[in-house]
Amino acid sequence: MSETILVGEADDARLSDFRRLNDQAARRKLEGDEFFLSEGWVSIGRLLDSGHVFRSVLLSPSRVNRFRPFMERPELAGVPVYVAERDVMGDIVGFDLPRAVLVSAVRKPLWSVDQLAAASNRLIVLEALNDDENVGAIARAARAFDIDGMVLSPTCTDPYHRRTVRVSMGEILHMRVARATSDGWPGALDTLHSHEFETWAMTPDPKAEELWCAEVPDRLAIMLGAEGPGLTRTVLDIACRRVRIPISGAVDSLNVGHAAAIAFAAVSRPRQ
Amino acid sequence: MSETILVGEADDARLSDFRRLNDQAARRKLEGDEFFLSEGWVSIGRLLDSGHVFRSVLLSPSRVNRFRPFMERPELAGVPVYVAERDVMGDIVGFDLPRAVLVSAVRKPLWSVDQLAAASNRLIVLEALNDDENVGAIARAARAFDIDGMVLSPTCTDPYHRRTVRVSMGEILHMRVARATSDGWPGALDTLHSHEFETWAMTPDPKAEELWCAEVPDRLAIMLGAEGPGLTRTVLDIACRRVRIPISGAVDSLNVGHAAAIAFAAVSRPRQ
Repeated sequence: MSETILVGEADDARLSDFRRLNDQAARRKLEGDEFFLSEGWVSIGRLLDSGHVFRSVLLSPSRVNRFRPFMERPELAGVPVYVAERDVMGDIVGFDLPRAVLVSAVRKPLWSVDQLAAASNRLIVLEALNDDENVGAIARAARAFDIDGMVLSPTCTDPYHRRTVRVSMGEILHMRVARATSDGWPGALDTLHSHEFETWAMTPDPKAEELWCAEVPDRLAIMLGAEGPGLTRTVLDIACRRVRIPISGAVDSLNVGHAAAIAFAAVSRPRQ
Repeated sequence: MSETILVGEADDARLSDFRRLNDQAARRKLEGDEFFLSEGWVSIGRLLDSGHVFRSVLLSPSRVNRFRPFMERPELAGVPVYVAERDVMGDIVGFDLPRAVLVSAVRKPLWSVDQLAAASNRLIVLEALNDDENVGAIARAARAFDIDGMVLSPTCTDPYHRRTVRVSMGEILHMRVARATSDGWPGALDTLHSHEFETWAMTPDPKAEELWCAEVPDRLAIMLGAEGPGLTRTVLDIACRRVRIPISGAVDSLNVGHAAAIAFAAVSRPRQ
């Protein structure tokens, strides 16, 4: 069983994983492909079940008792658990962190698009999604409807961003993720087609097929773009089908997470 | 056409509508049933179309040009448009506001549950939802699927909270809203039943009916509780039906906004 280590100085070198949480550029540089952070109890529970290797833990004294049962888990053997007063923790992370429980864990290698396509029947493809919370929410919904994996375009946000992990309720940690490189986009869609995936470009275009009428193929990749711009013309042109969720003419669009959840639910519904 | 008014002092009494945006208790006291705030361009556009009366506007100098066309609209005749440097604006609202465009508008009276039931065929009922963004996201989805109105339990969050308005993309401003009083809850559900509404309690309970199999009645109220606790036992017992969205056993639950969007989409889908 691991022991807690009291730290009193915010500049303690052992805490470098947890610095400047709100500085996205600094975090990307710090984390690289090495590690990510998970915060709050739900995500940490899901992290434990996900097979990721823990690096270290930082929590405030008031969280120690609730964390103690986790410390008996084999996944935490030898993992340093740092305890810092709330104000010291604030100085480390850069603001007052309400949850006051942070775990740093080793990133796993991402899947290649080819590997992921070979191992899956249902995929979600996200193009240029730059909102961490939308990606997290989509991962949670994707897991709920048995989507096997997620393909990200090169400019999508980091799927292991702290907020993404939290909003996904830790489900992103159980999701197979591939990220296309910039010279592999939109070629990744050809890879999906070569694995007999039918690609659906979700679009509000009134000329697109209605979601409820589209026949669901054995291998399906549902593609969504960022709120506002949506999918690029290039992806719309490559897609096997363009599919829309019929909505009221009075409303501009659906939230991209809602659109994803509705599409996942629709294709997984029982068909007579 | 209204003119802009330059303000240099954060404690200018004319700016009292815009103070301490992050202090929820202070805001509730300040706004009461009198007014609400809307921020950002999308919400302001939807606010203009919604028939609410503007009280005043606060924006930073860099936003004036884009705002100028709005100032020619009859809805803005005589409405003071205050311009404050970004740092002064920060001192007024209490933090650096990225959107830097705020409108204060007069609240309309809420509907009574009875009036709303008489005028509607599709309703959403929210019990104890305390997350502004979830309520906003649900309002946006409800409008997209032609839900006629929203009934809130007494402890639900304020539907005209600044974040709720923003996340709804201004759609909450076009939604008919009733809020049950504390002695009118859960009696509001009897009111719905007396208007021949069938009430569906959305629940993950595996014994509940599957959403996709439930026959959709002419008058339907879809009821959702907060994430985590869900609907109270009392509401589950009063409901005509308990309905679940089938999801993977590996995942705990759906986000409440996603559950709402899926339910709205499912009941509005074409049926053979």
